[in-house]
Amino acid sequence: MHYPRLILNEAICRQNISKMAEKARQNNLIFRPHFKTHQSVGIGQWFRDAGVDCIAVSSVKMASYFKKGGWKDIFIAFPLNVLEIKEINRITEDVQLSVSIESKTVAGFIAKHSTGRLGVYIKIDTGHHRTGIDPFDTGEIEDILNVIRASENLNFKGFYTHSGHTYLASGKKEITAIHDHSREKLLGLHTRYSGSFPGLILSVGDTPSCSLADDFAALDEIRPGNFAFYDVMQTLIGSCTAENIAVALECPVVAKHHRRNELVIHGGAVHLSKESIVLNGEESYGLVVQLSGSGWAEPFKNTYVARISQEHGIIRASQSVFDSIRIGGTVGILPVHSCLTANLADNYLTTTGHIIPKMRS
Amino acid sequence: MHYPRLILNEAICRQNISKMAEKARQNNLIFRPHFKTHQSVGIGQWFRDAGVDCIAVSSVKMASYFKKGGWKDIFIAFPLNVLEIKEINRITEDVQLSVSIESKTVAGFIAKHSTGRLGVYIKIDTGHHRTGIDPFDTGEIEDILNVIRASENLNFKGFYTHSGHTYLASGKKEITAIHDHSREKLLGLHTRYSGSFPGLILSVGDTPSCSLADDFAALDEIRPGNFAFYDVMQTLIGSCTAENIAVALECPVVAKHHRRNELVIHGGAVHLSKESIVLNGEESYGLVVQLSGSGWAEPFKNTYVARISQEHGIIRASQSVFDSIRIGGTVGILPVHSCLTANLADNYLTTTGHIIPKMRS
Repeated sequence: MHYPRLILNEAICRQNISKMAEKARQNNLIFRPHFKTHQSVGIGQWFRDAGVDCIAVSSVKMASYFKKGGWKDIFIAFPLNVLEIKEINRITEDVQLSVSIESKTVAGFIAKHSTGRLGVYIKIDTGHHRTGIDPFDTGEIEDILNVIRASENLNFKGFYTHSGHTYLASGKKEITAIHDHSREKLLGLHTRYSGSFPGLILSVGDTPSCSLADDFAALDEIRPGNFAFYDVMQTLIGSCTAENIAVALECPVVAKHHRRNELVIHGGAVHLSKESIVLNGEESYGLVVQLSGSGWAEPFKNTYVARISQEHGIIRASQSVFDSIRIGGTVGILPVHSCLTANLADNYLTTTGHIIPKMRS
Repeated sequence: MHYPRLILNEAICRQNISKMAEKARQNNLIFRPHFKTHQSVGIGQWFRDAGVDCIAVSSVKMASYFKKGGWKDIFIAFPLNVLEIKEINRITEDVQLSVSIESKTVAGFIAKHSTGRLGVYIKIDTGHHRTGIDPFDTGEIEDILNVIRASENLNFKGFYTHSGHTYLASGKKEITAIHDHSREKLLGLHTRYSGSFPGLILSVGDTPSCSLADDFAALDEIRPGNFAFYDVMQTLIGSCTAENIAVALECPVVAKHHRRNELVIHGGAVHLSKESIVLNGEESYGLVVQLSGSGWAEPFKNTYVARISQEHGIIRASQSVFDSIRIGGTVGILPVHSCLTANLADNYLTTTGHIIPKMRS
């Protein structure tokens, strides 16, 4: 395996999974985890071990990959791309596939071109303003439902949202307020349409809400993804603490610059991604940990990845950390956004020494 | 091929290559292009066609890849990672390999452990402050040179720098000032050490300087990489115009949001990278072009990728562009930073319909 390599702590990851699975059970929710974070059939097995049998993915390519891995109930939680209808039809041959619709144009297209039975979720924008229909735009919703009603192949699953604006919030109070607000909007739709679609479900997805909210009354399904690994961003939001982070990028230390207390690592934008956050007033691309055979300790204080280019990472270190780290060794970087870091990895190396493959081209 | 897909205009790319090759010839410079941008043996052939026979890369993995592609003179322009000494030694069996050194510690290590003949460049920090030795720190430089003198396997090639601070500058005047400043610092080292190393070369690398500077007197080698594709960032710096950009990401349009003139595309951080720039006061992740069979037209005005998440891109469009683009079609995105976008692609699709593979895991 080439350096840098992505180290995965299986015990922490399984703990994150079982905790969320348990929360879903206690709240009587379908647990449909989003697999875009890990993109790995091997890690998917850890979810199966926790009782999971349905998943969400973010592309048709990913749906095909997990179909090959034996998953039978897959929701592509991304606006349907009509250019991929052939591959979508192939997947429905073996899988209970659901797709995301937010316009009557696309609804009409799949009603006409789908060859297998297809579940349909309607995407609702509850405030994130990325994708989805405004919940008060009942005209567009009615139009889509009419297309579904008239089609033999389309099966209305329900309404789903992704309250991604929780990523800009912090702490249980703020997150819960956003969660409750999204829930109310979905509830309005439930009241309006459950008469004609008695089985319709309400599905929510973001990791901050699923980690921090306590009240899931009236909701039917959760689809968090990031929680399996968590990351530095989630510690700032308050969804987790550093001990819950399950991945660290192992990076060789290749140079030390005494005059500015900076360490150069092989670990750049093509490994960590360019996602950054502001930590103590400074732009940061990751926190630094000492790796050991069994995992890693808590992040070093006053030490962080301060700059990043294609292959270089520049760590600004406290004096004691600077002195303790030697050229030729490695350090671990806790990523700012684990989904993007994992996406860039070829595979995972567990702290117990196993290589776990993931989806690549 | 899955969408999104990276479209490459071969004619523009070859033009960028031949223009830079010609500039090197006219200035009597060794042209050692950096292949981290395209990471493709196929595109490497276009450089060969322009007379190139030596290259720079940014990792040992990339050196191995281009060795398999038949390249015989490779410089790994990244601080040597002692953990990869075995693979480095394997590469020297077939290749004139050069490495980058910036400490006596690492110099001592390779003097002891290299099994083949190895060229050594000393990295000089001329103001970018990422890596390299301060040119006035002649103690450290002397120490490294003494290690090289005492070793039979090490061959001192010369001093190299990467004036990456040109990326924060704009226009010919500012870029040329940085270039001249870096050149002066390297010249001081030449004066000091060319007596004992008469063949030592001075090598510079950044695309802005190589594109905009006219005076390369006393320099021996240039190592630009990005210029082969260029990108939106380089148009802002002034290294190129939009017509010189050789790559565009073809993204399906999957939703339209009339109330805010936003288009949703399948094209996110896992395709474009999270690199952004400020354009007309707004954060932007790419410009938008209409693709045609033979390439693309100039970027739409007042239209840009305003937000990005893992797989989603959100385009904020002018009214006329918004009205003209339909769900189910595709648009091209000119990337902010083509090196990172190309890194994320599985391969290239040329505007003439050929698939060109690139390095993957």
